[in-house]
Amino acid sequence: MIIDKLFEKVAQNGHVCVGLDTDYGYLPPEFAQRYPDIEEGIFQFNKAIVEATLDVAACYKVQIAYYESYGMAGLRAYQRTLALLREKNAVAIADIKRGDIAKTAEMYAKAHFTGDFEADFVTLSPYMGMDSLTPYLPYVQNHNKGIFVLIRTSNEGAKDIEYLPTGNRRVYHVVGERINEIGRDYLGACGYSGIGGVMGCTHADEAAEIRHILASTFFLIPGYGAQGGKAEDIAKYLHNGNGGVVNSSRGILLAYRKQPNGEQHFADCARSEAIRMRDDILNAIHC
Amino acid sequence: MIIDKLFEKVAQNGHVCVGLDTDYGYLPPEFAQRYPDIEEGIFQFNKAIVEATLDVAACYKVQIAYYESYGMAGLRAYQRTLALLREKNAVAIADIKRGDIAKTAEMYAKAHFTGDFEADFVTLSPYMGMDSLTPYLPYVQNHNKGIFVLIRTSNEGAKDIEYLPTGNRRVYHVVGERINEIGRDYLGACGYSGIGGVMGCTHADEAAEIRHILASTFFLIPGYGAQGGKAEDIAKYLHNGNGGVVNSSRGILLAYRKQPNGEQHFADCARSEAIRMRDDILNAIHC
Repeated sequence: MIIDKLFEKVAQNGHVCVGLDTDYGYLPPEFAQRYPDIEEGIFQFNKAIVEATLDVAACYKVQIAYYESYGMAGLRAYQRTLALLREKNAVAIADIKRGDIAKTAEMYAKAHFTGDFEADFVTLSPYMGMDSLTPYLPYVQNHNKGIFVLIRTSNEGAKDIEYLPTGNRRVYHVVGERINEIGRDYLGACGYSGIGGVMGCTHADEAAEIRHILASTFFLIPGYGAQGGKAEDIAKYLHNGNGGVVNSSRGILLAYRKQPNGEQHFADCARSEAIRMRDDILNAIHC
Repeated sequence: MIIDKLFEKVAQNGHVCVGLDTDYGYLPPEFAQRYPDIEEGIFQFNKAIVEATLDVAACYKVQIAYYESYGMAGLRAYQRTLALLREKNAVAIADIKRGDIAKTAEMYAKAHFTGDFEADFVTLSPYMGMDSLTPYLPYVQNHNKGIFVLIRTSNEGAKDIEYLPTGNRRVYHVVGERINEIGRDYLGACGYSGIGGVMGCTHADEAAEIRHILASTFFLIPGYGAQGGKAEDIAKYLHNGNGGVVNSSRGILLAYRKQPNGEQHFADCARSEAIRMRDDILNAIHC
């Protein structure tokens, strides 16, 4: 199962998920001059970043919103980026946060698990309920695909719905438990399920409990760095050094802006930042 | 504001929202033979449906999942369908149910309110919280755009999160009230807000209360027909004969399958079904 491949990648390369949230404005000016075409520029930038980070990243998360914002040209760059990741044998998470039901959800599953936009994992939003996940499950079972469902996010607005009290818990506890329960039917050899969850690394005080209750749920963890998430908090959401990947997007893509003459070697800067982040997390685990 | 245009369309044409959830398999066989190309076939089918229903529909809802499922070709058909709706001065709702935050949400807003995929309204999912709506609001304020936020849906799984009890209410009550509150800053001349809500027409017993509490929220109502929603239930979610549109997708697109030789005149069959549905709702309002 794909979750076993991701588990292995973490064991080999560490926990970094490189977020390819590529705005054309992120391209260093000289590079942008060489690739004035949106599709080509974004794709070539991604290619340089991917090639520089392959052995120090667990996986790549491609945020489709950035590509959609450039219309058809952006989506061609999205398609080519996913093809590149497949060619490189990298694990690709399509961050699409779709959430719909019945035939519409079937169409989303087809869209993002086959064809032009094929990825290994997709992210999903659970608001409409657990039947919004159903059409993805046959792909998890039979086609080496996986999903990450939003459980708890690290933004300010998370309090509006995710944190609403219900019974003696909060909405995100209910969602997490349902995901973990459904996921038990889709366990990989590594012990984690192909049904993962997005879990912000805030509220480190309840991390141990969450990791214990959602024992077979692999976490996609946002919020590292710029959003305030610290390596020691992240470590608490892991188990025996695995069980989660940690996304960083701008921190890696724009690392070159913090280095003298970084523009000249932006991909090296991305690699250095990925290594720094990888080691930051590994050190926190071993503390 | 765009909500005033939608209000006027309802007053003129009734409440039908034609759902262009177009699967290539919906094309009558002879029509499909004439247009074997996915992009062209889907676009030409949509064009025939739109031209046959313009004066009997309030608006069109284009479900992007169907188009995404055909990859780049499907998205070209999506782009051309939205361009056609603009050319026809029809109101277009992009049913995208996106839900993300910060710069990602900005990118989605740019993607679906400008450029290749420009629509009048988008649907959004509120799970991540009210800050996931923020980037769309300047478009509502200044660029004649609107949003419909998922409040309560009509699927079985709605009970999993939307119906969770919180305090003495349910999650969807909280969402509805927040939407209505935010929406008060974006009222059109018609009294309704550019911030609307998706409201399934189930639970007709609390319809009057919901319509009263969410007084300035315009509803996009799914679930008519095939999903069990009746015109008399829908009428309870309206106010003075306006304040909502009612989606039907397959009921209209595939109306031809219920008529003898319907395939030969599928667009006329769609028109007849839209008229039947329009009158069904108008009759229920006047009862």
